[in-house]
Amino acid sequence: MFDSAQLPKIVAMALILLAASPAAAEDGHRLWLRYDPVETPLRQRYAAHVSELVIDAHGPMANAAASELKRGLSGLLAQSIPARAQVDRDGAVIVALAGSPELRLLHLRTSGLGTEGYAIRSATLDGHTATVIAANSERGLLYGTFALLRRIQTHQSLVQLNLRDAPALSLRMLDHWDNLNGFVERGYAGKSLWDWGALPQHVDRRYSDYARANASIGVNGAVLNNVNASAQILTPAYLRKVKALADTFRPWGVRVYLSARFSAPIEIGGLKTADPLNLAVRRWWRAKADDIYRLIPDFGGFLIKANSEGQPGPQDYHRSHAEGANMLADALRPHGGVVLWRAFVYASSDKDRAKEAYDEFKPLDGEFARNVIVQVKNGPVDFQPREPFSPLFGAMPHTPLAMEVEITKEYLGFNTHLAYLGTMWEEVLKSRTARPNPASIVADSLSAMAGVANTGTDRNWSGSQFDQANWYAFGRLAWNPRASSRAIAEEWARMTWGNDPRLVATVVRMMMSSRQAVVDYMTPLGLAHQMGTGHHYGPAPWVDDQQRAEWNPVYYNRADSNGIGFDRTATGSNAVAQYAPPIAMRFANLRTVGDDYLLWFHHVPWDFPMPSGKPLWHELIARYDRGVATVDAMAQTWASLQAYVDPERFQDTADYLRIQGQEARWWRDASIAYWQSVSHLPLPAGVRPPEHALAYYKSLSFPEAPGQ
Amino acid sequence: MFDSAQLPKIVAMALILLAASPAAAEDGHRLWLRYDPVETPLRQRYAAHVSELVIDAHGPMANAAASELKRGLSGLLAQSIPARAQVDRDGAVIVALAGSPELRLLHLRTSGLGTEGYAIRSATLDGHTATVIAANSERGLLYGTFALLRRIQTHQSLVQLNLRDAPALSLRMLDHWDNLNGFVERGYAGKSLWDWGALPQHVDRRYSDYARANASIGVNGAVLNNVNASAQILTPAYLRKVKALADTFRPWGVRVYLSARFSAPIEIGGLKTADPLNLAVRRWWRAKADDIYRLIPDFGGFLIKANSEGQPGPQDYHRSHAEGANMLADALRPHGGVVLWRAFVYASSDKDRAKEAYDEFKPLDGEFARNVIVQVKNGPVDFQPREPFSPLFGAMPHTPLAMEVEITKEYLGFNTHLAYLGTMWEEVLKSRTARPNPASIVADSLSAMAGVANTGTDRNWSGSQFDQANWYAFGRLAWNPRASSRAIAEEWARMTWGNDPRLVATVVRMMMSSRQAVVDYMTPLGLAHQMGTGHHYGPAPWVDDQQRAEWNPVYYNRADSNGIGFDRTATGSNAVAQYAPPIAMRFANLRTVGDDYLLWFHHVPWDFPMPSGKPLWHELIARYDRGVATVDAMAQTWASLQAYVDPERFQDTADYLRIQGQEARWWRDASIAYWQSVSHLPLPAGVRPPEHALAYYKSLSFPEAPGQ
Repeated sequence: MFDSAQLPKIVAMALILLAASPAAAEDGHRLWLRYDPVETPLRQRYAAHVSELVIDAHGPMANAAASELKRGLSGLLAQSIPARAQVDRDGAVIVALAGSPELRLLHLRTSGLGTEGYAIRSATLDGHTATVIAANSERGLLYGTFALLRRIQTHQSLVQLNLRDAPALSLRMLDHWDNLNGFVERGYAGKSLWDWGALPQHVDRRYSDYARANASIGVNGAVLNNVNASAQILTPAYLRKVKALADTFRPWGVRVYLSARFSAPIEIGGLKTADPLNLAVRRWWRAKADDIYRLIPDFGGFLIKANSEGQPGPQDYHRSHAEGANMLADALRPHGGVVLWRAFVYASSDKDRAKEAYDEFKPLDGEFARNVIVQVKNGPVDFQPREPFSPLFGAMPHTPLAMEVEITKEYLGFNTHLAYLGTMWEEVLKSRTARPNPASIVADSLSAMAGVANTGTDRNWSGSQFDQANWYAFGRLAWNPRASSRAIAEEWARMTWGNDPRLVATVVRMMMSSRQAVVDYMTPLGLAHQMGTGHHYGPAPWVDDQQRAEWNPVYYNRADSNGIGFDRTATGSNAVAQYAPPIAMRFANLRTVGDDYLLWFHHVPWDFPMPSGKPLWHELIARYDRGVATVDAMAQTWASLQAYVDPERFQDTADYLRIQGQEARWWRDASIAYWQSVSHLPLPAGVRPPEHALAYYKSLSFPEAPGQ
Repeated sequence: MFDSAQLPKIVAMALILLAASPAAAEDGHRLWLRYDPVETPLRQRYAAHVSELVIDAHGPMANAAASELKRGLSGLLAQSIPARAQVDRDGAVIVALAGSPELRLLHLRTSGLGTEGYAIRSATLDGHTATVIAANSERGLLYGTFALLRRIQTHQSLVQLNLRDAPALSLRMLDHWDNLNGFVERGYAGKSLWDWGALPQHVDRRYSDYARANASIGVNGAVLNNVNASAQILTPAYLRKVKALADTFRPWGVRVYLSARFSAPIEIGGLKTADPLNLAVRRWWRAKADDIYRLIPDFGGFLIKANSEGQPGPQDYHRSHAEGANMLADALRPHGGVVLWRAFVYASSDKDRAKEAYDEFKPLDGEFARNVIVQVKNGPVDFQPREPFSPLFGAMPHTPLAMEVEITKEYLGFNTHLAYLGTMWEEVLKSRTARPNPASIVADSLSAMAGVANTGTDRNWSGSQFDQANWYAFGRLAWNPRASSRAIAEEWARMTWGNDPRLVATVVRMMMSSRQAVVDYMTPLGLAHQMGTGHHYGPAPWVDDQQRAEWNPVYYNRADSNGIGFDRTATGSNAVAQYAPPIAMRFANLRTVGDDYLLWFHHVPWDFPMPSGKPLWHELIARYDRGVATVDAMAQTWASLQAYVDPERFQDTADYLRIQGQEARWWRDASIAYWQSVSHLPLPAGVRPPEHALAYYKSLSFPEAPGQ
């Protein structure tokens, strides 16, 4: 890679890059794919297993795997790894498709790996030790490649490997809420990654960087545009731009999907209706699908938000969601595409909003075409810091379901609050549905996972260093919904921050406590939707003047002089009845519901005795204080890591933890001030009173809060 | 800086950074401050003049100068330059304030340098050769530092230096049209640089990078927010954020200004009026100014867009622009602040828009307070590819004037068209006003220059590699409005792309022809404002349905079967009469007006014989063709530079030139198709007909065009 005569030049370049150039600052742009050299002596141990590359597979994804191996191994081992036509020494890394001579010689079976899985095995070939990455498909090889690199990045052994892994869900996708003008709805990481103005002529390097990062965590689909969709994306000019992205993503195994506006036949098709049973409409969508597949043969399909928050949909024509979805499914079916139809609906004015998706979609089970996937948010309302799982999971046995989670932290403090969402998603995925079997969990009901992306043009991709972990965890959990969020946190911490045991343990500890901290200082004990109107920035539990009842925080907290919480038992909205009986019984019972969902399901008197022995009023306040204390502890913990972390990323994180600390106090103080105005109860002894009077908190306004 | 034992580690790091990390890709983020090592043997010659640094000045700006010298010289000479308390060898670089012992010993006088100028002199001190940077102020030292570095970056000699330079204008500022939600109006380079959400706690590294880049070209002020201003910026919460930016900019000599919304006393002050003669309003602004200066002692002042395009202003209360400006000036005067009051107004419905600013502001000459600067756009209309100079320059002898130019290319193809604006600004600055003296030029009338910034969060800062040149040229011309735009282009090319003579000559040639190319393919021969409605993307000469007459392209082109162009002579709007008589006479005469302003001032028959001998109709078409041909030539020329340029920036530019070529054809074809529909004349022999019929061009719509 260099000879010694070039050393002075290389050293000079290194100095420039390291010392003089902003480009050398650690800004997090490399994500978890840093590939910095492993320290010796460990590096020498790895080097014995990595002497050369033998690639027995061809095609765009196999080439991407090969280039990634070369890049990753060269970086991690700080030496160039030669590529060879065949094994000629110990320590080869072999990449081979099913059916290749190497795998036959080794009797390495790839059955059971499906089209995306991989096997990694230590072996001896032609008398030489080797490590073999095997799969039935190029995509499997790509995932196997990243798995092998991850082992080195996380300092795991390469000795006597015998790994087999395949994704539990076949569709693992990011949903970008990106508008065509570059604005990202609920985006806190800069502008949209897609520079529509310069596409297709200019294909920015970040597009392949993005797809490569997705490949490294197994994400295999991307919806490019906002579910509040513009029909423009389906015009020929934009489809040429979409094609350029699809071509760029393809070697990294990421297929492109689009959010389609249901009324597009009117807006860009010149039709008078978008009625899904109208023949001209059906023809229009079929022709549109044909056009798309001519440009993008592996186009994934459409994501639809219909009859939800003002979006057009089949109900505008008195047709059902199934009729709408099936019309699009018909258009896509000849090409192998799918429809992702969102179940996020709440149209009724008097029904408990938490009940609406179930009541509207459960009766449609069995009516959807086979290439329709119903996409259900993790909870029954809307991406709150904590919700019980949506009762639709397990309740639609004849319909493939996707779980939609929000990676971008719309309701968890935006990008400046540190909240690791792996724990939240694990909690939901492992929740018992008792459908169809008593032991069934949410993960069993899924065919797909979709994450609302937190990516943007910010240099760190996700708006903060730690928000990268949520992108990472989403991919890893979509690959294996039974994975441990703690293990994922550790993996990410090692790859992103380093392998020093103290560093890793501390970072993981911060991450594991972080989401509960947000729950505590924003919406403890099962509260929900107490955020500021529209932008969702900061506390606003007092708001009661919004046009629709369910847009008001008071709708959710129902706080009055008697108590607080939403009665969803039989004496109230009876939303509990949407769950399987054993689950419903647990939720309906004040003694068994547990702290996490207490106020979600029950209106509880202020003096209700909590398991801690305290009355609810005291316990509620203690939760806010616990949340604030956890953030303070995170900030202190982080400060102790200064010596372990580069100054730039250290400071980024320290600054954001300071913001989080201030805003956690604001949440606590404003919330307590409001609850006290309703409960008329004194603060428990020793409790710090809110810094300001309630009127102050009510007076704050944030017309320029981001993401809206 | 390193010892040989660390070499392998450094080499490994270099390889990682160069080979494995996206951060190492050449993305233009370093702007013109690259500081890559000069090649030997030239480097050795420089090294003889740069052996050590002796800094005899202290304070934030002096420290910035010292750190920049260290960083720049270490990079350029590929060696660490030690700092010493005093000269102890040949080749010292001395940085010294007026009055320091070094300057006394050398009899180096700083009189005449003012508060921002510098001298650089080769000298002998204590028997050692040295290079001295001297100034009356820290800011002067900072500018001298960048001047010395620039000499090395551009491969100029350091032998027997005796340079003195000082800015001709005391205020050289960028106006950011950045909204508080992060959107940049007419921005084509990503989001706003200012992350208001995370300020003041998180001070992003890009803020000081930005200020440093400004310092390097002499820009000493920045208006942070859009002239279409939100009053929110004046609330305490935002002022704390502004303070954090001001603190960050201060060491680089950049003062902060704000766009103030005239009606802020109502919107955030709780008053019922914003009448500038109302005592409560005056008190409110005084208190607001006091608050600001408590936080930011060197706050620059306010920029105001009033009674213009719907913005509030003093005329809402039947007060004059002077009364409005003077009220704000009163509030700022005790603190040394200034008001920049924009003359961009066009309120009348029947008057030639080109006449309005003059008619409204000229009568106010002498009525403005002394700390008011009237800010006048370079031309009488609005930042077109070419306009004659505004007749206000030279016409307000009792009023300090700022010239406002638009660095962001709202009307010149956005970021994807290569158009070097230095030539345009030089053309305007050197235009003869004949006021007050026959030889007076526009530059003589100026106290300040303001450039509407083209910066954003895009990695290359300006939306394209070549758009950096416009930021650069703005700063250099604001420093010296009589400078040569060609010399500036060469300077920038050397610093940004390299010093190879063929590379420099070719890049400069491209730049120097580029703006005329845009004029030719968009608005040849003095046409103006033919862009698409609102977004200004693409051609729309046919548009005639906008609410206000002067928002329609047909208002400007006045094309009919007889001819084309706007009669601004005595037979028409008589706008020529606003110029000094000798200038007016030249503009009014068809034989002397010249091609550049022909259709700006005259309605000309299609068969008018042009100096080329062709009739106007043929000449007009030839100009479009010339514009397209120039772009094609630029693309070919650029392709020839592949070996001289890093692959990333080469590709970026090649891609954008391809877009520009396509859009230049679009402009040509759509424009010719429309003119033909009006002139009913056949195309001259050999002329390529438009690719599509006129109806096609009219049918195109761009609801998602950027910047609006």
